[in-house]
Amino acid sequence: MSEDYIFLKACRGEPVDRTPIWIMRQAGRYMKEYRDIRAKMSFLELCATPEKAAEVTLQPIDALGVDAAILFSDILVPLVPMGIELSFKEGMGPVLEPAVKTLADVEALRVIEPEEDVPYVLETIRILRRELEGRVPLIGFSGAPYTLASYMVEGGSSKNFIKLKTMMYKENAAYDALMTKLAKTVIKYLNAQIAAGAQAVQVFDTWAGILSPHDYTTFVAPYTKMVLDGLNRETVPVILYANNSATLLALMKEAKPDVMGVDWRINLDDAIEALGGDIPVQGNLDPTALFLPREEIPARAEEILRMGKKAPGHIFNLGHGVLPPTDVDNVKALVDAVHNFTG
Amino acid sequence: MSEDYIFLKACRGEPVDRTPIWIMRQAGRYMKEYRDIRAKMSFLELCATPEKAAEVTLQPIDALGVDAAILFSDILVPLVPMGIELSFKEGMGPVLEPAVKTLADVEALRVIEPEEDVPYVLETIRILRRELEGRVPLIGFSGAPYTLASYMVEGGSSKNFIKLKTMMYKENAAYDALMTKLAKTVIKYLNAQIAAGAQAVQVFDTWAGILSPHDYTTFVAPYTKMVLDGLNRETVPVILYANNSATLLALMKEAKPDVMGVDWRINLDDAIEALGGDIPVQGNLDPTALFLPREEIPARAEEILRMGKKAPGHIFNLGHGVLPPTDVDNVKALVDAVHNFTG
Repeated sequence: MSEDYIFLKACRGEPVDRTPIWIMRQAGRYMKEYRDIRAKMSFLELCATPEKAAEVTLQPIDALGVDAAILFSDILVPLVPMGIELSFKEGMGPVLEPAVKTLADVEALRVIEPEEDVPYVLETIRILRRELEGRVPLIGFSGAPYTLASYMVEGGSSKNFIKLKTMMYKENAAYDALMTKLAKTVIKYLNAQIAAGAQAVQVFDTWAGILSPHDYTTFVAPYTKMVLDGLNRETVPVILYANNSATLLALMKEAKPDVMGVDWRINLDDAIEALGGDIPVQGNLDPTALFLPREEIPARAEEILRMGKKAPGHIFNLGHGVLPPTDVDNVKALVDAVHNFTG
Repeated sequence: MSEDYIFLKACRGEPVDRTPIWIMRQAGRYMKEYRDIRAKMSFLELCATPEKAAEVTLQPIDALGVDAAILFSDILVPLVPMGIELSFKEGMGPVLEPAVKTLADVEALRVIEPEEDVPYVLETIRILRRELEGRVPLIGFSGAPYTLASYMVEGGSSKNFIKLKTMMYKENAAYDALMTKLAKTVIKYLNAQIAAGAQAVQVFDTWAGILSPHDYTTFVAPYTKMVLDGLNRETVPVILYANNSATLLALMKEAKPDVMGVDWRINLDDAIEALGGDIPVQGNLDPTALFLPREEIPARAEEILRMGKKAPGHIFNLGHGVLPPTDVDNVKALVDAVHNFTG
């Protein structure tokens, strides 16, 4: 009966009784239930332990009543079997070693075989499909090649991405080899998630918004398109999301996602217009709007819900991941406001 | 003869023989001459020493041949006499103590009297006007209230600005008092710079781009307008700039700046269109484009120069400040490319 889930119907632009909602990073530190589990194991251990990863995936379904679950994992997980050592230092963000610098470094990386290299991700999906059946659909996800490359070349998070851009501008062979290898890995990774039971997938190109439209077109769009063209997506909608993408939306659409994720810096109706009005959208409340007085949150949600009606489908979400200090009761108030909207 | 400077003519939308160029943060760490001076004194000492501040202001005029000078200082300088202790820790960004938290904290802040509180800034301007006369005009500047408030409330740089937004959303009296006091300070500060000889001023609202259009309109626009309405700008053009402002440009224009600064994430012709085509623009090469192979820089500049012709005036600039690791010879190549453009 998965075809009846309102999340999937909205992804396909089919009529729905109400707008579905899920929240990027909905399983996370703002929830006490999540922090209790993380007190007992590291973030990467949690990602690699299917029963526990499934448990935290379900927490916001139970506590908030959102309309879709998203696999609990991290976009950096598939980089480890490619040949990168990954660690998280509290408050520091991820550290990736060795940083990728040369064509030889890229050639040393492997394209992953998901069933062998990240079996725990696929097992988490299988557990979740059993536990979720009849409740809400399950979203799988991956980072997009550019965002994954940014972490690999910078060795972690970055402010100005100078190492990545220097490779992109000056070491074309290394950059193309890296992006191609990442695109192949993302295709295998997402297709394995789909085979394991993911009912939709989201491609996170979190950092693409640092780019000028010129550079996005030249250096990112071809690889994103390679990924979307390679997915077994006949029955599985693909959501493409980048943070800070107001000026990139029309360019991103050329990769032909089923749904376009929209960040909060653009009014949703302007985003729908920029996209030509013929593609479902997902978004786009400012994550910091959850720091408003609780009673003001519904009006903010309703403003976006009204704008969303101009698209063939709208999935309500934040414009970026929910922030760790967010009050969970405010998130609940948001979900309720979206569910109760009748405008 | 200052009316003949091409930078000022472009600001006024008057015809010019070629597009003028200056570069945000053009006096800075990417220049050896600057690093040599900074080896002998701290950043704040340099800001407070008129002869030396004037010297570094002139360095890019001599070395690069840019078409305007901009006062060497920091947007945080006027916050010190307001009652904030400011320090810079190498590689850490600014630290402001005490952080502003309550209405009482705001009430303890002073509106500055520039001639008494920051005489060295005005003396730097007077020195520069003498030394620059007949060469290029001098730009003064200030942070905008919202950007200054962000540093004061967060106690420094921030990623998600949760403290600032929590005050903005929940402590309306404190937020309004802080923004009003900052607007009054900025007005006095810029008018004093104009009286001392600044021939144009730029208002940097660097962080406004973190906001949704809704929040920009509600919480920022009124104070920016208060500033621009309070300036003695009869003969002095005002440039308003925010980073990451693609979706805010039309809202920012309502404050009636003479020139709108544009960051690199939007094609300049799209920015001109969003602005209604009737206001001069400044921008907007991606600062990381200076990491391209040197021979590719002119084509990037020319693409922007061609787009700029659609506005009544265009001042070439980067879309944000020049990055410290930038090769100065690439900056020179950019300036030469803009000067040599005949398209």
